[in-house]
Amino acid sequence: MQDPQPWKVLDRRYVLDRRPYMMLREDTVLLPNGARIDDFFVFEYPDWVMTLAVTRDGEFVLIRQYRHGIGAVYYELAAGVAEPQYSMLENAQRELLEETGFGGGHWQPWIQASANPSTHTNTSHIFLATDVERIDSQQLESTEDIVVQVLPGREVLRILRAGEVFQALHSAALWRYFAEFGLPG
Amino acid sequence: MQDPQPWKVLDRRYVLDRRPYMMLREDTVLLPNGARIDDFFVFEYPDWVMTLAVTRDGEFVLIRQYRHGIGAVYYELAAGVAEPQYSMLENAQRELLEETGFGGGHWQPWIQASANPSTHTNTSHIFLATDVERIDSQQLESTEDIVVQVLPGREVLRILRAGEVFQALHSAALWRYFAEFGLPG
Repeated sequence: MQDPQPWKVLDRRYVLDRRPYMMLREDTVLLPNGARIDDFFVFEYPDWVMTLAVTRDGEFVLIRQYRHGIGAVYYELAAGVAEPQYSMLENAQRELLEETGFGGGHWQPWIQASANPSTHTNTSHIFLATDVERIDSQQLESTEDIVVQVLPGREVLRILRAGEVFQALHSAALWRYFAEFGLPG
Repeated sequence: MQDPQPWKVLDRRYVLDRRPYMMLREDTVLLPNGARIDDFFVFEYPDWVMTLAVTRDGEFVLIRQYRHGIGAVYYELAAGVAEPQYSMLENAQRELLEETGFGGGHWQPWIQASANPSTHTNTSHIFLATDVERIDSQQLESTEDIVVQVLPGREVLRILRAGEVFQALHSAALWRYFAEFGLPG
């Protein structure tokens, strides 16, 4: 069976400009079957970086942060917006250091994914960093209010199963870790 | 250390009304440390439902669909917008049946998560359905162009590792499956 084909863009209007964080675009599109959507909204974001950071002792460096969309605090990975003058790896290392004070160790690409490829133009680049250690203090921006929590694997598994890692990109990275390396004893 | 506290909303304006799919809201917020953000954007969505469906033979019912934000086709789970007159389970069963023709089997809640809790108000309810079977033909809406692919576990693992399941909510559900039940042989 033939793979679905791209939509054709008939018209494109920018509704909001909040660079460098987001531009909101409204497209009029024609589907391969002839259907037309007059107002399909697309969020143009820069790429995001995130890090699943594990210490030499096998503990996980997580943060807690208030998230205004859902109106609650959950466990998260250190994450941020990629700045174009740096590589994705450098961006991820900078965000981990600023938000948690952890660094060093061995880094590898872990997952590339989207929060929602239907509406988002950007990719999230998630890294796995092992053998990290605390090398500095937190350096937060004025709009950041982040509490670091370093948790053993069995506690991370508990909060995952309990739905306390609510951001799907972070949940995917952690579940992949337990799939590839086994559940903690 | 004290958990991060909620932001206080000083003002709230609706920028776009695309009910029932989305409302775009702009909040002026005050952070606990006194910082103020004048234009924090929030997307008010209804909840979404998704299903990780596995057949009696242990094969995975996936779909392929063009996603206009990212401009590409990836592997996905059957998913859709929850309609308020149905339970989340009923919504998930309806979407799986409409998009793939599969149904029946045993259903359980699997993951509740958010595409992005910073900007999205809604929750995605992901179900695990086992022992499903093809019971009807696809019933697509005019704006849907969906190709069903039923794949064995080792092929699902390959596409996961290759980044071909790009939507993080779907990736999280599949990685959890392999974490809880083991990698396919």
